[in-house]
Amino acid sequence: MPSVYKPSFTCDYEEGAHPAILARLQETNWEKAAGYGLDAYSESARARIREAIGCPDAEIHFLLGGTQVNAVMIDSLLAPYQGVIAPESGHVRLHEAGAIERTGHKVLAVPQTDGKMKACDVAAAIAAWEDDLNRDHMVMPGMVYVTHPTEFGTLYTLAELEEMSALCRAHGLRFYLDGARFAYALACPENDVALTDLPRLFDAFYLGGTKCGALLGEAAVFPRPGTVPHFFSIQKQHGALLAKGRLLGIQFDELFRDGLYGRIGVPAIEAAQRIRAALQQAGFQQCYGSPTNQSFAIVADADLPRLGEMVVYDFWEKLDADHTIIRLCTSWATRAEDVDALVEALSQW
Amino acid sequence: MPSVYKPSFTCDYEEGAHPAILARLQETNWEKAAGYGLDAYSESARARIREAIGCPDAEIHFLLGGTQVNAVMIDSLLAPYQGVIAPESGHVRLHEAGAIERTGHKVLAVPQTDGKMKACDVAAAIAAWEDDLNRDHMVMPGMVYVTHPTEFGTLYTLAELEEMSALCRAHGLRFYLDGARFAYALACPENDVALTDLPRLFDAFYLGGTKCGALLGEAAVFPRPGTVPHFFSIQKQHGALLAKGRLLGIQFDELFRDGLYGRIGVPAIEAAQRIRAALQQAGFQQCYGSPTNQSFAIVADADLPRLGEMVVYDFWEKLDADHTIIRLCTSWATRAEDVDALVEALSQW
Amino acid sequence: MPSVYKPSFTCDYEEGAHPAILARLQETNWEKAAGYGLDAYSESARARIREAIGCPDAEIHFLLGGTQVNAVMIDSLLAPYQGVIAPESGHVRLHEAGAIERTGHKVLAVPQTDGKMKACDVAAAIAAWEDDLNRDHMVMPGMVYVTHPTEFGTLYTLAELEEMSALCRAHGLRFYLDGARFAYALACPENDVALTDLPRLFDAFYLGGTKCGALLGEAAVFPRPGTVPHFFSIQKQHGALLAKGRLLGIQFDELFRDGLYGRIGVPAIEAAQRIRAALQQAGFQQCYGSPTNQSFAIVADADLPRLGEMVVYDFWEKLDADHTIIRLCTSWATRAEDVDALVEALSQW
Amino acid sequence: MPSVYKPSFTCDYEEGAHPAILARLQETNWEKAAGYGLDAYSESARARIREAIGCPDAEIHFLLGGTQVNAVMIDSLLAPYQGVIAPESGHVRLHEAGAIERTGHKVLAVPQTDGKMKACDVAAAIAAWEDDLNRDHMVMPGMVYVTHPTEFGTLYTLAELEEMSALCRAHGLRFYLDGARFAYALACPENDVALTDLPRLFDAFYLGGTKCGALLGEAAVFPRPGTVPHFFSIQKQHGALLAKGRLLGIQFDELFRDGLYGRIGVPAIEAAQRIRAALQQAGFQQCYGSPTNQSFAIVADADLPRLGEMVVYDFWEKLDADHTIIRLCTSWATRAEDVDALVEALSQW
Repeated sequence: MPSVYKPSFTCDYEEGAHPAILARLQETNWEKAAGYGLDAYSESARARIREAIGCPDAEIHFLLGGTQVNAVMIDSLLAPYQGVIAPESGHVRLHEAGAIERTGHKVLAVPQTDGKMKACDVAAAIAAWEDDLNRDHMVMPGMVYVTHPTEFGTLYTLAELEEMSALCRAHGLRFYLDGARFAYALACPENDVALTDLPRLFDAFYLGGTKCGALLGEAAVFPRPGTVPHFFSIQKQHGALLAKGRLLGIQFDELFRDGLYGRIGVPAIEAAQRIRAALQQAGFQQCYGSPTNQSFAIVADADLPRLGEMVVYDFWEKLDADHTIIRLCTSWATRAEDVDALVEALSQW
Repeated sequence: MPSVYKPSFTCDYEEGAHPAILARLQETNWEKAAGYGLDAYSESARARIREAIGCPDAEIHFLLGGTQVNAVMIDSLLAPYQGVIAPESGHVRLHEAGAIERTGHKVLAVPQTDGKMKACDVAAAIAAWEDDLNRDHMVMPGMVYVTHPTEFGTLYTLAELEEMSALCRAHGLRFYLDGARFAYALACPENDVALTDLPRLFDAFYLGGTKCGALLGEAAVFPRPGTVPHFFSIQKQHGALLAKGRLLGIQFDELFRDGLYGRIGVPAIEAAQRIRAALQQAGFQQCYGSPTNQSFAIVADADLPRLGEMVVYDFWEKLDADHTIIRLCTSWATRAEDVDALVEALSQW
Repeated sequence: MPSVYKPSFTCDYEEGAHPAILARLQETNWEKAAGYGLDAYSESARARIREAIGCPDAEIHFLLGGTQVNAVMIDSLLAPYQGVIAPESGHVRLHEAGAIERTGHKVLAVPQTDGKMKACDVAAAIAAWEDDLNRDHMVMPGMVYVTHPTEFGTLYTLAELEEMSALCRAHGLRFYLDGARFAYALACPENDVALTDLPRLFDAFYLGGTKCGALLGEAAVFPRPGTVPHFFSIQKQHGALLAKGRLLGIQFDELFRDGLYGRIGVPAIEAAQRIRAALQQAGFQQCYGSPTNQSFAIVADADLPRLGEMVVYDFWEKLDADHTIIRLCTSWATRAEDVDALVEALSQW
Repeated sequence: MPSVYKPSFTCDYEEGAHPAILARLQETNWEKAAGYGLDAYSESARARIREAIGCPDAEIHFLLGGTQVNAVMIDSLLAPYQGVIAPESGHVRLHEAGAIERTGHKVLAVPQTDGKMKACDVAAAIAAWEDDLNRDHMVMPGMVYVTHPTEFGTLYTLAELEEMSALCRAHGLRFYLDGARFAYALACPENDVALTDLPRLFDAFYLGGTKCGALLGEAAVFPRPGTVPHFFSIQKQHGALLAKGRLLGIQFDELFRDGLYGRIGVPAIEAAQRIRAALQQAGFQQCYGSPTNQSFAIVADADLPRLGEMVVYDFWEKLDADHTIIRLCTSWATRAEDVDALVEALSQW
């Protein structure tokens, strides 16, 4: 008996790459290119990103994955005795196997609500160090780390980021954005943070490729060139420099051709909106209030098997003894028929 | 005036990937796969590699590049106070921007000839520590690192590796192979080290993808599973774990399908043989005696511009005030017409 | 006008060393001794400690200070991908400037009450990792760190430590004691943890010298020799090996001669008891319930200047907008007349 | 049968401390002092050192030992991707168990003669990086490390250090002095490098206490304050900050009282001169040409037992199959009668 087809919404990196990327890889396969990101594809990709963010001088490097880019950026931006302020729920705090600590830096946890920190809590963490008579014995906060969208799919407002940016400037901290899913923010009507805002707000940020249509790759951006001298050698030393840099250059050149990065997340957001509507209709309580490509619902444990027959979902966490929070995650590659199937199934819940 | 076409032999990662890899990426693009190397493609690739090396129990992990895999393997196999014995010319000693030292380990340099260490020199380095009354104040040798083919394109004999392997066993050191270009050894008539010899000889090794037909990727192999507990977490912590692990799985699945890895280097070797013959005929003195895909020639500095009109070569190093060693490097992607053009040009030198 | 003499109780390392130590340093000054802890004084000190803890095979090393010994012990006992469970208030978490993170390890904070963790909270932290489907992406708990007395002067009961020790054994974690102030536990009637209990309870521990009568120095103990191979080299590599090891050997030889370590804290405890009684009589609310040499009281901010005229106290932390917690710390060197002066002053509060 | 008394010259840290230091420790023992180097003794010591080196603004920190101070200074002065140029024979390269590499930095070895590097060899090492087309893949030289006196007891001339200092300035490298035995240079007639030359020559240096009369301790000096921001926190993070900082302050306050540091090595030099004269008279070939407190002689292996009956010497290294180089080391604590005994014995060789 053949297994029944079930749509899967477990994460946003289940598929390969956007077809334009594969086509370009095919088309350029036999061209010869310099290594280590010094190739013409990478140069073109940098030019397109600079234009997209409205920052002609930005220094841009391509790295391979999210944990890696976070570790290298944080390590290169901090002094050895500094730590990074991050939400309790931050990816760097919880899900990177100690990659930040391996570079010698403490993650200074700040409370969060739905994945977002409040400027007042960040200010309190900074003041806790500044006002401590023994601060020279403590880890000095050197950076504030935010994700947008957050791990919970939520969005900061531009005003919130402006406030936190001003706070960082006032206290001499770096302000850094983990933009692993930034394309899904751009595709979301609720989002008011534009690519062109980033250079003004942040000392450094990265725009995600892996979760936004690439096979792999993240674009690390320093709006002010020379922010970290010799970043190339730092990349190399961290094992984060790709020999065939063309692979990253070609992908970001496609992602930023004709504004694709701003559009690629649209199907994911539309699919997520349909899923959230269907969940509501079916009577599931939703949580975190994510307007982006991740949707979260509370499910009685007794109902999980039945839900599991309809869809491959992602276990998020236990809420209490009898309930579980599940995640349904769409992506640039989500197919309408998969959403149809889930919506149909939920309509009979 | 259009520039005249010139063949280029600067390195073995100038092109994209073997067509079979691109085709498979295309074909599987919309399939959904688990992340982090837990996908079916990676499992299949592991099974094929295990069969190719004749080691059904081998533990296999896919990493992203050569510097990274060396740093992670060396760090995970050594105790913190141990160092790695490597030839003075070793890639880990010279060309990795301190990536090994960043993990806290000293590279203990041993003399080399044409890129190869002698077992007696390795033995002397081990004895220097063992016999030193103050050895507890010194860096303890914990591993011997070899490349095959070496940075100079030369090959160890199986007997030489057997001897060094026995030496490591006798003194409790790990024996590790950097096989970045192993496919070019396999394609070379002079080579007598088979894939099936590796599990017996080495505690750990990696088979290169980046230089041998893949877009990126290296297959790290522990013949004895559990050699390094929790290697997955170590990979993650080093930022060396790919989210879309399918990208590595698919590539190695193709490289090891129907013995492709054993054949993929053949055109490179044949091209290199033709190039070396042409160099000889043209009167160039060659060096190191590489039988693999890298060829080295001594060129009077005065002749470099003329040579540069014929071919894009790689500067290797200055030999003396008036002479330079150049490298010509072929690969799985080298086209016969490029070799023809160079051979023809050299025939009129 | 001369400043009025004020007793000072700011910390337990304000004075030099126990007179027996100074006398012995004087007496042995011109004797020649081997370096690096290989001298006869260090050997004698080790023998005395082994006898005191009832563990004839214990492996003992002398290090220089608390932050250092914690960093070296934690780093040498953990695998690189492991973290250390410690109370939110733990010295390693807060007051060591990131010394633990510098060795690459995350501090996994567990709730505390009066400086003590509960076994159930530790068990929950271990389970949180063990039960997490993504645990390979998380920091694996590898050790439980306790202080006795704690940072708040409180004491674990033997039963509590037995329970936590069993928990560690059951789950394969190391159990480690920071005994910076262990002499003050030994001198305290409420304490039921004997020196001879330590080898059974812990995989490793250190007995503090700096705060307990020495000029500097901590005795690191592995009840089972070989727990960490090549610890000597690790010490050296961390810059934690004293050239004139005699200085540490002589001090611990004196501290453990005729049971001095068990008695040296007695005056501190008696003084602290008198201070706590005087604080109570003066109507101050005390906190944490420390029975050892540290006493804590809540003082209205408005009263701080008046208190500051009587005694040099240690600011501990702000309790709320109008109140501060202060610490009064006695030591082996506390003089009765200083306590008299404070008690007298408080009697007129 | 009692063992015959034999003078010992194995190293310069066999004894305790200069009597003035012990007396001062005794005298100040019950005074209360702030911790972590913020005490009045440390302040006084800093003032005296500033005066001795003629640099009123110098920033001075006290650390605990040679390996530690080298590791902390090198790590804090280099960017993560930089390495330190040191002689092949340098202590940091060979005898510190990888302490420098543990901080992530490569030691770039330069040839030496009798423990000294030549400016031209240092210049060549810098040029090797600057001229390498692939220098971004290499370890960038960031500092030049010299010892004075060297590990072989030899001395740089002021002119040699001036040349190397100018070279460092011209190429943007830090110039750093390991002055573990600087007091023995000051006591040596051949030396023309004064304490007051150091601030001009070096970006950072340390003046040794451990080998020059203290129980332990090294004074790290930055002639230009703020060279390394937050050095205090860096010290703490490395476990290199002493709680009872008074112990270091008192010692250096004594070592620099009334110029003691300039005189304390005189007996060592006079003793070494007598020993070298006696060795020559006895027909031993000497080596390295040390004019300071270390003397080296070549001894036929067959003669070692007989020599060993006269004196406890230090094995230095095997010269060839039949000969050994031994070291005889004097110190501030060397007693004339011990030298008499050795000279007398050698006179009958």
